[in-house]
Amino acid sequence: MAESQSGAGSSGNKRSKGTNAAKRAMAGVTQDASTVPPCGACKFLRRKCSDGCIFAPYFGTDQGAARFAAVHKVFGASNVSKLLSSISTNHRHEAAATISYEAQARLSDPVYGCVSTILALQQQVK
Amino acid sequence: MAESQSGAGSSGNKRSKGTNAAKRAMAGVTQDASTVPPCGACKFLRRKCSDGCIFAPYFGTDQGAARFAAVHKVFGASNVSKLLSSISTNHRHEAAATISYEAQARLSDPVYGCVSTILALQQQVK
Repeated sequence: MAESQSGAGSSGNKRSKGTNAAKRAMAGVTQDASTVPPCGACKFLRRKCSDGCIFAPYFGTDQGAARFAAVHKVFGASNVSKLLSSISTNHRHEAAATISYEAQARLSDPVYGCVSTILALQQQVK
Repeated sequence: MAESQSGAGSSGNKRSKGTNAAKRAMAGVTQDASTVPPCGACKFLRRKCSDGCIFAPYFGTDQGAARFAAVHKVFGASNVSKLLSSISTNHRHEAAATISYEAQARLSDPVYGCVSTILALQQQVK
């Protein structure tokens, strides 16, 4: 998880790791134990995670990184960032959860996505 | 609809229209009656619509342009293009329809999107 922080990972993209390390060195960021690991979304996006990261509360963990990968592929990080920003803070958890659900459904079923669930439920209701 | 082709539209972005006309002139494109108008998606994206445009069969009309605007805002044109390209041609109509439905639902209800319909139907099924 903290591979890009510690620089001790045994695998991964060496060139990218080196570049990130150089960037951190230039920015004067120390690599001590107090370095906060990026949230799952920023880890996936290979970017620095700021204090006010819009994704961190909803895609914080390693599992969050996997969920974010699906969200990023289907909706795009920028669109999801705009969507979450437009919603009041107390509703963002639900929005992130439903966006994740839709993204997973679309990857599982590229033609119908979660609309297949709606169609199946409508059949049951009839 | 054919505003950018005929140059006779009474409203719209004059600067963009002029730029497009200049581009067409440089490319040697004549502005005669045989010019094919762009599909709704390409009109919205203000780009040239090619013969093999991936969006044209599903967002062809003026109504298609409005539907594409929602799809573009929620999913992004690039993501939808990739999605449609990854699906066999005979399933793309359904995919475009479900993507449009999801996009409209997300714009109407930014927190739950079409998942609100799933939750409501699940309540009815119980």
